[in-house]
Amino acid sequence: MGGLKEECGLFGISSAHKEHIGLGCHYGLYALQHRGQEGCGIALNTDGELSLQKDLGLVNEVFPKALVFDEEKTRMAIVHTRYGTSGERSRENVQPLLVRHHAGSMAIAHNGNLTNDESLRSQFERDGCLFHTTSDTEVIAYLIYKHRLTTHTIAEAIEKAMAELEGAYSLLIMTSSQLIAVRDPRGFRPLCLGKLEDGYVFASESCALDAVGASFVRDLQPGEICIVDRADQRLTSSIVHTNKVKSSLCVFELIYFARPDSVIDTISVHQARIRSGSFLALEHPCQADVVIGVPDSGIDAAIGYSRQSGIPYGIGFIKNKYIGRTFIQPKAGDRESGVRIKLNPIASTVRGKRVVLIDDSIVRGTTSKRIVRLLREAGAKEVHLRSSAPPFLHPCYYGTDINSRKDLLACKYDMQQMKTILDVDSLGFLLPEQVVKLSDHPCIGFCSACFTGVYPGAVPQGGNNAQ
Amino acid sequence: MGGLKEECGLFGISSAHKEHIGLGCHYGLYALQHRGQEGCGIALNTDGELSLQKDLGLVNEVFPKALVFDEEKTRMAIVHTRYGTSGERSRENVQPLLVRHHAGSMAIAHNGNLTNDESLRSQFERDGCLFHTTSDTEVIAYLIYKHRLTTHTIAEAIEKAMAELEGAYSLLIMTSSQLIAVRDPRGFRPLCLGKLEDGYVFASESCALDAVGASFVRDLQPGEICIVDRADQRLTSSIVHTNKVKSSLCVFELIYFARPDSVIDTISVHQARIRSGSFLALEHPCQADVVIGVPDSGIDAAIGYSRQSGIPYGIGFIKNKYIGRTFIQPKAGDRESGVRIKLNPIASTVRGKRVVLIDDSIVRGTTSKRIVRLLREAGAKEVHLRSSAPPFLHPCYYGTDINSRKDLLACKYDMQQMKTILDVDSLGFLLPEQVVKLSDHPCIGFCSACFTGVYPGAVPQGGNNAQ
Amino acid sequence: MGGLKEECGLFGISSAHKEHIGLGCHYGLYALQHRGQEGCGIALNTDGELSLQKDLGLVNEVFPKALVFDEEKTRMAIVHTRYGTSGERSRENVQPLLVRHHAGSMAIAHNGNLTNDESLRSQFERDGCLFHTTSDTEVIAYLIYKHRLTTHTIAEAIEKAMAELEGAYSLLIMTSSQLIAVRDPRGFRPLCLGKLEDGYVFASESCALDAVGASFVRDLQPGEICIVDRADQRLTSSIVHTNKVKSSLCVFELIYFARPDSVIDTISVHQARIRSGSFLALEHPCQADVVIGVPDSGIDAAIGYSRQSGIPYGIGFIKNKYIGRTFIQPKAGDRESGVRIKLNPIASTVRGKRVVLIDDSIVRGTTSKRIVRLLREAGAKEVHLRSSAPPFLHPCYYGTDINSRKDLLACKYDMQQMKTILDVDSLGFLLPEQVVKLSDHPCIGFCSACFTGVYPGAVPQGGNNAQ
Amino acid sequence: MGGLKEECGLFGISSAHKEHIGLGCHYGLYALQHRGQEGCGIALNTDGELSLQKDLGLVNEVFPKALVFDEEKTRMAIVHTRYGTSGERSRENVQPLLVRHHAGSMAIAHNGNLTNDESLRSQFERDGCLFHTTSDTEVIAYLIYKHRLTTHTIAEAIEKAMAELEGAYSLLIMTSSQLIAVRDPRGFRPLCLGKLEDGYVFASESCALDAVGASFVRDLQPGEICIVDRADQRLTSSIVHTNKVKSSLCVFELIYFARPDSVIDTISVHQARIRSGSFLALEHPCQADVVIGVPDSGIDAAIGYSRQSGIPYGIGFIKNKYIGRTFIQPKAGDRESGVRIKLNPIASTVRGKRVVLIDDSIVRGTTSKRIVRLLREAGAKEVHLRSSAPPFLHPCYYGTDINSRKDLLACKYDMQQMKTILDVDSLGFLLPEQVVKLSDHPCIGFCSACFTGVYPGAVPQGGNNAQ
Ligand SMILES: Nc1ncnc2c1ncn2[C@@H]1O[C@H](COP(=O)(O)OP(=O)(O)O)[C@@H](O)[C@H]1O
Ligand SMILES: Nc1ncnc2c1ncn2[C@@H]1O[C@H](COP(=O)(O)OP(=O)(O)O)[C@@H](O)[C@H]1O
Ligand SMILES: Nc1ncnc2c1ncn2[C@@H]1O[C@H](COP(=O)(O)OP(=O)(O)O)[C@@H](O)[C@H]1O
Ligand SMILES: Nc1ncnc2c1ncn2[C@@H]1O[C@H](COP(=O)(O)OP(=O)(O)O)[C@@H](O)[C@H]1O
Ligand code: SF4
Ligand code: SF4
Ligand code: SF4
Ligand code: SF4
Ligand SMILES: [Mg+2]
Ligand SMILES: [Mg+2]
Ligand SMILES: [Mg+2]
Ligand SMILES: [Mg+2]
Repeated sequence: MGGLKEECGLFGISSAHKEHIGLGCHYGLYALQHRGQEGCGIALNTDGELSLQKDLGLVNEVFPKALVFDEEKTRMAIVHTRYGTSGERSRENVQPLLVRHHAGSMAIAHNGNLTNDESLRSQFERDGCLFHTTSDTEVIAYLIYKHRLTTHTIAEAIEKAMAELEGAYSLLIMTSSQLIAVRDPRGFRPLCLGKLEDGYVFASESCALDAVGASFVRDLQPGEICIVDRADQRLTSSIVHTNKVKSSLCVFELIYFARPDSVIDTISVHQARIRSGSFLALEHPCQADVVIGVPDSGIDAAIGYSRQSGIPYGIGFIKNKYIGRTFIQPKAGDRESGVRIKLNPIASTVRGKRVVLIDDSIVRGTTSKRIVRLLREAGAKEVHLRSSAPPFLHPCYYGTDINSRKDLLACKYDMQQMKTILDVDSLGFLLPEQVVKLSDHPCIGFCSACFTGVYPGAVPQGGNNAQ
Repeated sequence: MGGLKEECGLFGISSAHKEHIGLGCHYGLYALQHRGQEGCGIALNTDGELSLQKDLGLVNEVFPKALVFDEEKTRMAIVHTRYGTSGERSRENVQPLLVRHHAGSMAIAHNGNLTNDESLRSQFERDGCLFHTTSDTEVIAYLIYKHRLTTHTIAEAIEKAMAELEGAYSLLIMTSSQLIAVRDPRGFRPLCLGKLEDGYVFASESCALDAVGASFVRDLQPGEICIVDRADQRLTSSIVHTNKVKSSLCVFELIYFARPDSVIDTISVHQARIRSGSFLALEHPCQADVVIGVPDSGIDAAIGYSRQSGIPYGIGFIKNKYIGRTFIQPKAGDRESGVRIKLNPIASTVRGKRVVLIDDSIVRGTTSKRIVRLLREAGAKEVHLRSSAPPFLHPCYYGTDINSRKDLLACKYDMQQMKTILDVDSLGFLLPEQVVKLSDHPCIGFCSACFTGVYPGAVPQGGNNAQ
Repeated sequence: MGGLKEECGLFGISSAHKEHIGLGCHYGLYALQHRGQEGCGIALNTDGELSLQKDLGLVNEVFPKALVFDEEKTRMAIVHTRYGTSGERSRENVQPLLVRHHAGSMAIAHNGNLTNDESLRSQFERDGCLFHTTSDTEVIAYLIYKHRLTTHTIAEAIEKAMAELEGAYSLLIMTSSQLIAVRDPRGFRPLCLGKLEDGYVFASESCALDAVGASFVRDLQPGEICIVDRADQRLTSSIVHTNKVKSSLCVFELIYFARPDSVIDTISVHQARIRSGSFLALEHPCQADVVIGVPDSGIDAAIGYSRQSGIPYGIGFIKNKYIGRTFIQPKAGDRESGVRIKLNPIASTVRGKRVVLIDDSIVRGTTSKRIVRLLREAGAKEVHLRSSAPPFLHPCYYGTDINSRKDLLACKYDMQQMKTILDVDSLGFLLPEQVVKLSDHPCIGFCSACFTGVYPGAVPQGGNNAQ
Repeated sequence: MGGLKEECGLFGISSAHKEHIGLGCHYGLYALQHRGQEGCGIALNTDGELSLQKDLGLVNEVFPKALVFDEEKTRMAIVHTRYGTSGERSRENVQPLLVRHHAGSMAIAHNGNLTNDESLRSQFERDGCLFHTTSDTEVIAYLIYKHRLTTHTIAEAIEKAMAELEGAYSLLIMTSSQLIAVRDPRGFRPLCLGKLEDGYVFASESCALDAVGASFVRDLQPGEICIVDRADQRLTSSIVHTNKVKSSLCVFELIYFARPDSVIDTISVHQARIRSGSFLALEHPCQADVVIGVPDSGIDAAIGYSRQSGIPYGIGFIKNKYIGRTFIQPKAGDRESGVRIKLNPIASTVRGKRVVLIDDSIVRGTTSKRIVRLLREAGAKEVHLRSSAPPFLHPCYYGTDINSRKDLLACKYDMQQMKTILDVDSLGFLLPEQVVKLSDHPCIGFCSACFTGVYPGAVPQGGNNAQ
């Protein structure tokens, strides 16, 4: 598969109030930093002129100071935080993209992954088009422009482009006069709408609305195109291409990606994680003295497990808050187990105890193995590992960077073998059928293909092995 | 009072194993970053030659890359993380200090605050000495050199200097041939000793020993001078000046400064905080639906309150992990309450609930007030605030930067007034007499002067008001 | 006119010797820094894979350290230094460009300016192509790819593209397997070929060949396409599209742009400037005591004037070597004349003397006026100003950023008025007919359109006024 | 010898006009950058409070942006540019120093080198004083404070300190209320006084007065102490300790250090260098076709040689303007001769010619040898090398970092051998007795000890060999 797999954060703001834009970009980036730490960028609309600032790095590295821009004339902006697989780290791929055309320039930011980007790209190349990046976002831009030449409005062009796009895409698009939010017809990736006194905000997660003091309006619906006009801050919306498909929100957004304080498609992420812990307690009970979660992603499920099981909840690990992207790692080797710089057990919590340890998922197993060892070194008598995601068995084509099958622990070993490898006293995963019950709203459809192999749409040929 | 008040982190390493030094400095700094985020530094001993690298900023800013130094010849190092009041931010005051003298150079790093530094400093100035910094660390260096001229060993000089020093000081001193750790006779600030295969480590907190894979040996005793020789990595120790005084560990180390995974003077910080929560539940019970802690410092006590009271523990707030020193703050004003960029409530936890909210302490009250407001906006029905420290009523002269009395909420208002100001349904503080029971070891003495006004030693004249 | 006007430096290297590439890029950039100080970039060919590093800034800012790349596998590179008008400073426009296409990726760097880029660009946009930059370089890339789809070799595609391109372009193109140098059929901008032991070098100026220790082979001929193969370092060449046109090297390359130690189209830049001084002495003699040049661009002509006239040559000004792009300027105002931070007269050279002052050109006249004033303040009795370029009367469409006509001193005032404005005792310009005699080789054609209004080719419609 | 040898630039400003201070510091640093490129700093006096900003690096690196300070309240500043031998590069040694004392703080900047700093330093150390730096500037600070304790004014203290100081020192001292300039009784290093409308400026060289638009008043006299009061900008002056000694300005200031546009002790540096060229032409004539200077330091003498001899002056080399401190050097080896990145010959000037080549001095000979080789490669028929300094035969104890005797070419070889080593057709040095005639003012005394071995004062014991 050629396209980049990425989990990303989107934030867009349109406001008649000049102070909102600068702080909005800044806070939007910080609030969505957890969705992408490789790079970030801001595109501004200043009296119809689009400009771009972006780079590899964390928000505080790329934008160490307050943005410099014409506050009087800037009324719209979109920002993007990017996560990319290490091999593809390059500044060109940082978003938003800004493309120029005499029919009008356009800034575009994308979260998700197309499943037909390769064939679209070669078609464009055969027609004489050039690409500056390896990201499928540029393919989307081309498709929109292709249709823009034969349509009256950008909304029509986007609608026609969506007929050709397959896969996962939440988009923010900014033209000289409009801010447009798009969610693919299956709604793989989240996108929501907020209201400012005198404008609108779009964001991947509701925590970013909170960050800028916007009130939550609603999630974009799958297949929805939402448009805000710069001139009068008026909002219009339409829903397209949804007749043929049903919604399939990525469950891994609830399990891992999103921040616990976000609400996605009316589901509280924190509550969903607590529910996963309760399911685990029901399905995989055990006799133990304390339940602990691997910070930060295992904490909420641990609370759920504790509540359901009655086993006291405790804090088992302290995670160093200051270790960032550039931290110099200890070298692999024997001594590693002794080095507890990132994650350090609290001995008084686990010494002599039977411990239930909750993590969000087990991918290659190396991290889990190391954490179990730390617990044992700290004196834990038993370790019962529970994963609030089912075993990963299949690749994701929708933007989640799941290791290739040959690296996935659950693809290579059975339960008994995994228990031995991880050195745990018992091991339990959330059941695939429970994954879709993390919400108590029965009406919403989910994707859980990486656990079940049942993909919501066509997937790239040979993809399964190519991974 | 002229001296700087500061809370800081100390780490020293002496090892025959060349790989330990570089990584050790690096990890030591990261593990103690929470004790000081204003600046940091490293002093190295390379074949007896001392050198220094330091600057204002976080560890990852000051040392973004692996240290460059002569690995073959460097066997000792001391590092320091510094917290200082904002008015005194200057590179000169970052530590360690490196002072030169033909009797031998010396690097020195200090945690704590002297109570007689002003008079010592003027005496030295009258004798023709010059100062490069405004920190009392330089005074200590002078005093040691003064006695060094008339003693046979640096240990003797330190002992004599200690006879003249008053107040709080944990010190790491590195000469061309020795690494020396010193804890003042009252043991205000923590300092502990760890063992590497082929060397020793000193650190303010045991979590830094864990970070470098050192095994914990013991806390330094009040009045102890510990010396490691570069030549043979041999450790010697003596205890001085302790006949006249009793130990007085700063209780605020347990309540707030130290990391929960550290063990100080045999007390688990995490357990001490859980105990504080239990005391609060016993002393200030209430009818409520959920107990939450203000992250990160209120979490442990919240668990204690929950366990003691039986009220379920919940996660009420998400704290943004990426906001650092350089974050651009929202401007004061009405809208502030709506902006939840640093701390965002999880509505599903508190909506319609009676909430017990635990924080480590209430100083000026402004933060608490804002947090209570966020809870009410998120739908909390009642808010019962509990502080795991007693009210601050007196200045600290031992290195904790407590606001001047006129800013301390508890100095200005009675309980009823505070309740109104903070807009809480009930308010409860840990009792001063409970503070000294945070440990279950009766043998250790504590300082709790900022709560009780009973100081373990003489305090600067007029200090009380000058604050 | 839409396109960017720019003067730039090109350098390309292909060598089987691994050490040549890294140092080559580094030295090539430094040697051509004078041709563009706004930004710079390097494109590398590593075993056929193209990668790119570029940014706004001087070479030492963009590449402060030795390049990090796979030395074993990298055998080709092209670099670019960029000068752009201040309004268009943006990172997107920094070169080389790297464009991707399944027919093969390509890095491209360009010196010069097209005269038909607007119409080409709109044609491509109508065909559905998108642009990432505002530079005409991207237009060239599109044109080459358009023809690449229907030709067998990239050389053929380039030849076909050249049939459609109008204006000035020296190009370096790097594909996965070839390094290609192209000079437009009129040869507006210089480009030369050098030989390494085991490879080839292309550069805008011969001083860059010297910098990397390459031997000068020859200038590319107008209309020449030179190709070096990565596999065997073999060079092939063809000359195209030159039947219809005659060569027209920009004379301003000799007068101002190029470094004096460069040799362009067999003309020594230094000698050409000395000749300009001799012409000035013959045409505009005067009675004076000393001849001085404005450093650095007026020095050579001053020596020529001195030699021809017999008036002693002297050093009249010291130019501060450390003032770079980021220097904080004095604010305009009365005091300015007194502030001699950039250029300071040597009083002992000019006090009480009649001074002949030589500068390369007079554009808006503000700099010349200030310099004359400095001389008078330093005690010069008379100032006789001579310009080694004729008066600018017409816009340049070939990449030189000449001010719009309304700013050009010579467009607004006659000789007598200019003399008064500049406050000089006499004023003399090189004659337009002498400009083409700066070389003593009669066979080479020149462009001198900005002085004469006689353009070597079609110019953009309305361009003359739009400037 | 323990002290650091350094050549440095001093600039001090006191002005009632608020705009002068910020720009003044900035311009002063740029104007004196040639005197020290290792580090630089600024000390400010803001309403009597002293503060400091300094670091290793060039001015544009250390102060990339306009200074941030309280413009309303800042009326005085001193700045320093520092040159230090490579082995001693450390931030501690960057100046100004800021020392604190309850009798008053003081910032101090120093150009020169003491000859008795070692004995003074040990005396202070024996008295219990500590040093933070290895520079002799700290010794001077101590000495002034020592006497400050027993005198009524700082001027008296300085006068008493000067009685104990031996060697070369030009000083700028700033207290809370005064700006003080001091020149040692022999006047080794330059220092001059300028006048602003409403204040005063001190600078190492007059070019810095020009840079800030100050009018030149006069050079400080040897032994002079000049004081400007912050309160009323009043200037007072006294001259001390000059009865016993005669003045001895370092001739190397004229030959090499100072900028040609500076006037030092009434001598135009540019004229002095032209005179040195004339002396060389008289003493070491030859038959040749062109005279060229090694840029930048050999240019002026080359003009002198040309004028005296009648041989035409030409430009033989172009020096790359962009190569700074951080440039990555070519590695030593055979190819080096081909790499002409720093200095590139202009072939048209020297091809087939007999060339007189002038450089300021020949120290180790390696640079001269390389330059001669470049000329020969460029086609020079004969090369006649002339040095405008006599051969270096003795160490300097006054702040010039002359290589140790064993590296000095002239210490190891006779004229004939040097000719062979340098591969020149003839070789000529300025005569030591001519050095003191570079000025046409007979009244000024010079130091030329490094050429003659006759030192103006006592020198450190064993110094001659220890070098
Ligand atoms: N401020 C926060 N507090 C708690 N959890 C957070 C916060 N920000 C992000 N998260 C959650 O943290 C998880 C990722 O962090 P963590 O598990 O610590 O990292 P890792 O990816 O290294 O396992 C995600 O589940 C995300 O939802
Ligand atoms: N990694 C960590 N996890 C949990 N708590 C921590 C960690 N590092 C430091 N602490 C604790 O965090 C507290 C300070 O953090 P916090 O309360 O969030 O900040 P603030 O000082 O802004 O109130 C201290 O009590 C410290 O012991
Ligand atoms: N190292 C050098 N020595 C002398 N001249 C140079 C050097 N590098 C570039 N040049 C010439 O300097 C001129 C530009 O410099 P100058 O006139 O000082 O700058 P400005 O563009 O500010 O007038 C050009 O003519 C260029 O050929
Ligand atoms: N802007 C300038 N123009 C000409 N000469 C200068 C300038 N600035 C400093 N100098 C002189 O340059 C000389 C040092 O430069 P140079 O000889 O090029 O360097 P190096 O120290 O590498 O030999 C000194 O003599 C100094 O007086
Ligand atoms: S395959 Fe898995 S990770 Fe990918 S979208 Fe579906 S649930 Fe999410
Ligand atoms: S006064 Fe308070 S803060 Fe200070 S040392 Fe004592 S307990 Fe700690
Ligand atoms: S118009 Fe002038 S500047 Fe432009 S290419 Fe022709 S000669 Fe050069
Ligand atoms: S010894 Fe030489 S370099 Fe030193 S001060 Fe005297 S003349 Fe100058
Ligand atoms: Mg995790
Ligand atoms: Mg807190
Ligand atoms: Mg010029
Ligand atoms: Mg030189």
